[in-house]
Amino acid sequence: MLGKTRRIAVMAEGSFTPLDAKTALGVIRYRPEEVVAVLDSVRAGRTCEDCVGIGGDIPVVSGLEEAAGYAPDTLLLGIAPQGGALPESWRRVVADALMRGWDVLSGLHVFLADDPELAELARAKGCTIHDVRRPPASRAIAARRVANTDALVVLTVGTDCNVGKMTTALEVHAELKSRGVRSAFVATGQTGIMISDQGAPIDAIPADFVAGVVEKLVLEAARDAELVIVEGQGAIHHPAYSGVTLALMHGACPEALILCHQAGRTHIKTFDAGPAPRLKSLSEIIRDNERAASWVRTAPVLALSLNTMSMDDLEAKRAIENAQQLTGLPTVDPVRFGPEAIATELMRRLDERKRRASNE
Amino acid sequence: MLGKTRRIAVMAEGSFTPLDAKTALGVIRYRPEEVVAVLDSVRAGRTCEDCVGIGGDIPVVSGLEEAAGYAPDTLLLGIAPQGGALPESWRRVVADALMRGWDVLSGLHVFLADDPELAELARAKGCTIHDVRRPPASRAIAARRVANTDALVVLTVGTDCNVGKMTTALEVHAELKSRGVRSAFVATGQTGIMISDQGAPIDAIPADFVAGVVEKLVLEAARDAELVIVEGQGAIHHPAYSGVTLALMHGACPEALILCHQAGRTHIKTFDAGPAPRLKSLSEIIRDNERAASWVRTAPVLALSLNTMSMDDLEAKRAIENAQQLTGLPTVDPVRFGPEAIATELMRRLDERKRRASNE
Repeated sequence: MLGKTRRIAVMAEGSFTPLDAKTALGVIRYRPEEVVAVLDSVRAGRTCEDCVGIGGDIPVVSGLEEAAGYAPDTLLLGIAPQGGALPESWRRVVADALMRGWDVLSGLHVFLADDPELAELARAKGCTIHDVRRPPASRAIAARRVANTDALVVLTVGTDCNVGKMTTALEVHAELKSRGVRSAFVATGQTGIMISDQGAPIDAIPADFVAGVVEKLVLEAARDAELVIVEGQGAIHHPAYSGVTLALMHGACPEALILCHQAGRTHIKTFDAGPAPRLKSLSEIIRDNERAASWVRTAPVLALSLNTMSMDDLEAKRAIENAQQLTGLPTVDPVRFGPEAIATELMRRLDERKRRASNE
Repeated sequence: MLGKTRRIAVMAEGSFTPLDAKTALGVIRYRPEEVVAVLDSVRAGRTCEDCVGIGGDIPVVSGLEEAAGYAPDTLLLGIAPQGGALPESWRRVVADALMRGWDVLSGLHVFLADDPELAELARAKGCTIHDVRRPPASRAIAARRVANTDALVVLTVGTDCNVGKMTTALEVHAELKSRGVRSAFVATGQTGIMISDQGAPIDAIPADFVAGVVEKLVLEAARDAELVIVEGQGAIHHPAYSGVTLALMHGACPEALILCHQAGRTHIKTFDAGPAPRLKSLSEIIRDNERAASWVRTAPVLALSLNTMSMDDLEAKRAIENAQQLTGLPTVDPVRFGPEAIATELMRRLDERKRRASNE
């Protein structure tokens, strides 16, 4: 993780649940061998599996002192509060970790390394603070350059935040690689960056340069890949984050979209005030995303990824069948039942392009 | 300007033309009494009127030494190169201005006050560097709050960058005020901020917070206004800046849009590489903007603002008639022929709302 194999204590104080601890869950799902403990005093004594359904026997502990028993070398902040600020109680925990000589990985919008006390502590103890959300200095301006590459570029889009855009991209990417496809994954958020050791935290970039930075990432990934799958962010219908989503969409310039949705969600979940807006129908959301993409490049929604986390197996199967019938699209829950159908759809698309290219 | 009345030398070296010197032109058009000279060695000896069609006898001079003859107290960087970086030759001019004890106003993405040499010079000489594009520290998250205010919120949108979104908003705002409407203008770019002494440079804000910052600006403006007119940025069809535009649209949550277009422009002008994309038809652009707005709040395009700068009077009148016929919308060039028709349309809308409100 970020250049080396680590022994990580994941901070998720008071929030170690599948919905609240997004970064923690991503890291536990995709780098479990590096996680030695999770900090949440409310759930101390339980296991990860018990709290969030993944992570097996990784222990949940009450605090740094108990975590130290598992010999971590890194504290990872596993929660990303809306707004991204650092609660003072967390600041003390970070200082304590640095005092113990641990590195700190943070995805917050506020940069820990800019805090004089924390920076001085890190220096004195010879450890490193990684502010994963620090934006690149690049002032790239997008110009539809991705349309000139040969790779098939695919973007995950969503009906809302926190529905499974990163997970879907990672699962489909892994499946494609296992089938021998030269697939590349492009991370666009702090969790994806921690998991894949590349990418950029696009929501922290000055707005003018978001599309340009994404374009650069995709062009780099496309150099050695026949398929590039880009982690989506936000939703074009989300009043707070739609701009991030559209910049990502027009910078990545995809040829195909995968729509991600949490089954059963009827309203925008991550909403700051007042009554949350109702989600439109899947068909309307598909149409709107295709329209928005087409302003720069035509990109149909090829498949649907349904997050059925909150359902039992029977409900999940029914929800998937319903969505498939409603949209006419291959539909899977990539985590629960595997991403095969999406991977197959993308390979079909890849073969079509190869045939077209060889006929020309 | 920014808290006081100034005597400004506007730096526009090599670029003092209507299309290239966007910030210079805005300041000369709306704060002419504060501009004492324009620096452009290529055009030295001419007048503003002669170079850009406005600004009357304001002299164009060869450099700082000549400008000093007009006793300025401020150097304003009047060009905003794409990407926003500071050319080294400009850096010398800024240093020279500070040496003379002048304040410096800059709208560049790179912050002059962060340059140790320039900062030290400013300190030593007791003058101020205003980096107008420095984003506010606010981490506001938008949540459709504007929909709960009573004011009629209007946003200018565009077919491209640099077509007249700020100018249209300012002209319509001034016309409404002259008719006794309690109108407020919200600036969202560096030139608008310099002209109106308020607002935020939204394209420099971390992407996550753009909509939230705009929401706050509009809510503040709506407190004492019955109509708020918000300066648009970019275009939803622009591959580089569409995200800024959508964030602004969903943060401002307008109830009405005014579409701005440069008559005769057929392709995206501010494009970084390769063949520039062709603009869609006005009808398609209107439809797409209405759709994008409707994802958060319904907002029809009520009028068309046509920039006919590059045409003679006859051509301009024909272009306006054509566009009006094509779209069925009130169409004006607010600078050339006045913004009356747009103001009238907005007042009609305002009256309708009042009638509806009093019937409830």
